[in-house]
Amino acid sequence: MKISTGKFRIRPGEDVDLRKRATLVPPFYESRAHYQDLLARHVSQMRDQQDLLYASNRHSILLILQAMDAAGKDGVIEHVMSGVNPQGCQVFSFKHPSEEELDHDFLWHAVRNLPERGRIGIFNRSYYEEVLIVRVHPEILRSQNLPLDSPGGERVWEDRYRSIAGLERHLHRNGTRIVKIFLHLSKEEQKRRFLQRIDDPRKNWKFSRADVEERKHWKEYMRAYEACLGATSTRDCPWYAVPADDKQNARLIVQRIVLDTLEGLRLAYPKLDARQKRELLALRKQLT
Amino acid sequence: MKISTGKFRIRPGEDVDLRKRATLVPPFYESRAHYQDLLARHVSQMRDQQDLLYASNRHSILLILQAMDAAGKDGVIEHVMSGVNPQGCQVFSFKHPSEEELDHDFLWHAVRNLPERGRIGIFNRSYYEEVLIVRVHPEILRSQNLPLDSPGGERVWEDRYRSIAGLERHLHRNGTRIVKIFLHLSKEEQKRRFLQRIDDPRKNWKFSRADVEERKHWKEYMRAYEACLGATSTRDCPWYAVPADDKQNARLIVQRIVLDTLEGLRLAYPKLDARQKRELLALRKQLT
Repeated sequence: MKISTGKFRIRPGEDVDLRKRATLVPPFYESRAHYQDLLARHVSQMRDQQDLLYASNRHSILLILQAMDAAGKDGVIEHVMSGVNPQGCQVFSFKHPSEEELDHDFLWHAVRNLPERGRIGIFNRSYYEEVLIVRVHPEILRSQNLPLDSPGGERVWEDRYRSIAGLERHLHRNGTRIVKIFLHLSKEEQKRRFLQRIDDPRKNWKFSRADVEERKHWKEYMRAYEACLGATSTRDCPWYAVPADDKQNARLIVQRIVLDTLEGLRLAYPKLDARQKRELLALRKQLT
Repeated sequence: MKISTGKFRIRPGEDVDLRKRATLVPPFYESRAHYQDLLARHVSQMRDQQDLLYASNRHSILLILQAMDAAGKDGVIEHVMSGVNPQGCQVFSFKHPSEEELDHDFLWHAVRNLPERGRIGIFNRSYYEEVLIVRVHPEILRSQNLPLDSPGGERVWEDRYRSIAGLERHLHRNGTRIVKIFLHLSKEEQKRRFLQRIDDPRKNWKFSRADVEERKHWKEYMRAYEACLGATSTRDCPWYAVPADDKQNARLIVQRIVLDTLEGLRLAYPKLDARQKRELLALRKQLT
């Protein structure tokens, strides 16, 4: 059975209500062994597609991952992409912006780290933080030294959505296929995972006060995600709200979405024309 | 049986004679299945080490791959590192230098693409091309707009070795562990692989006139490699001449060299001190 991903896709302009979108759906696998089999089969298909993407050298894939803490972004990257040729895969993690980044527009840093043609790029967080964490904490906006006549209130976010959509349209026109994943986690499941991190000595270095602080703003984050997903999901560069309470299921869904995108490109190995074939045969004779 | 890599290591200041160094050694595997088992076991160990490298966040690994065409650099990257978390692995391929690069010193471009702390970086070719292809084709040097009083003749290469050694010493002092691999291929085996590329329609887009042209300079390349390996292999940043006529064997050897380097760091997960543990327990109570 092929995993159907259509129902996780956000329609352009949709009035998103994340409470009505599932954080848990019936699993696409029947057992642990079945999950691992599906995962490996997907990885093998992805490997073939990645090889074609590299050889044909016309397109790139940009996979954007956004989510609340502990939703499984790192796990998605590790399990979905492990096995794909690392030479064709570029992961870029967004951290606290440096002073140099703050001295540029809010898309500058991401643009410098876009995947090259023929590669799959993964953004672990992205410029979308600028309409998510910054919207939840407007004091960050005030520290960004924006021009004095820049719009206030809701207009800031509308303007940022427009800038983002403009960049993404431009990239799409030039061969980048953009897929945006929101790993949709329930607040209860986040708590369970935080407790695990605290209680497991191998994991507790990952946990910090900031995680607890951000959790207190859960509702504001959901409102910011709802506004953002509805405003920036387009036909060409769609958002998917992937149920993330079951990590295994989420990984299979993300693999399927990426595979559908790659297969949609109908990639093929470059074919030599008659002149190139003749030249190749001439070169063959020169080999001593 | 642990694969012993010591005999492939170039001694500092060694008078390297590549004709005396094997391009083929008895394989470390007994069958195709045994090879795949060893490869997978190494990948799994590398995965654990990479996780520790990331968690402890003090060191990085820089793996430099140099070789003649078709020696198997791409295959090493694909098979040695596939399965390692792509988030912890950064591959950088050196291409023809752009005008911007040519307007900087010959190390500038590489420095901008060094791996971050906690990551494994792989250079597919590197600044070593500046004492290899450039040495074989001195006309490239003339196009580099070097200062008029820069040294001519052998002095150029000596100066470049010194610059490289200086950079590598600096990186080592600051936590980067540099491992340099020369995939040592015989001229006969290159011919066999070129013919395969020409005859396989899935591969022949990889083949070009330049490959045939460079092969004509085989001897000059070997002399350039010999001078370079002897001059730039150091105790801290060693070169290995890995026999590459057997691709599978070469991959196992490279894995072992990288694993030895990682294990030599004696990495451990960060441990919380008493105060941090108390804070963690306080945070635990705040989770609602």
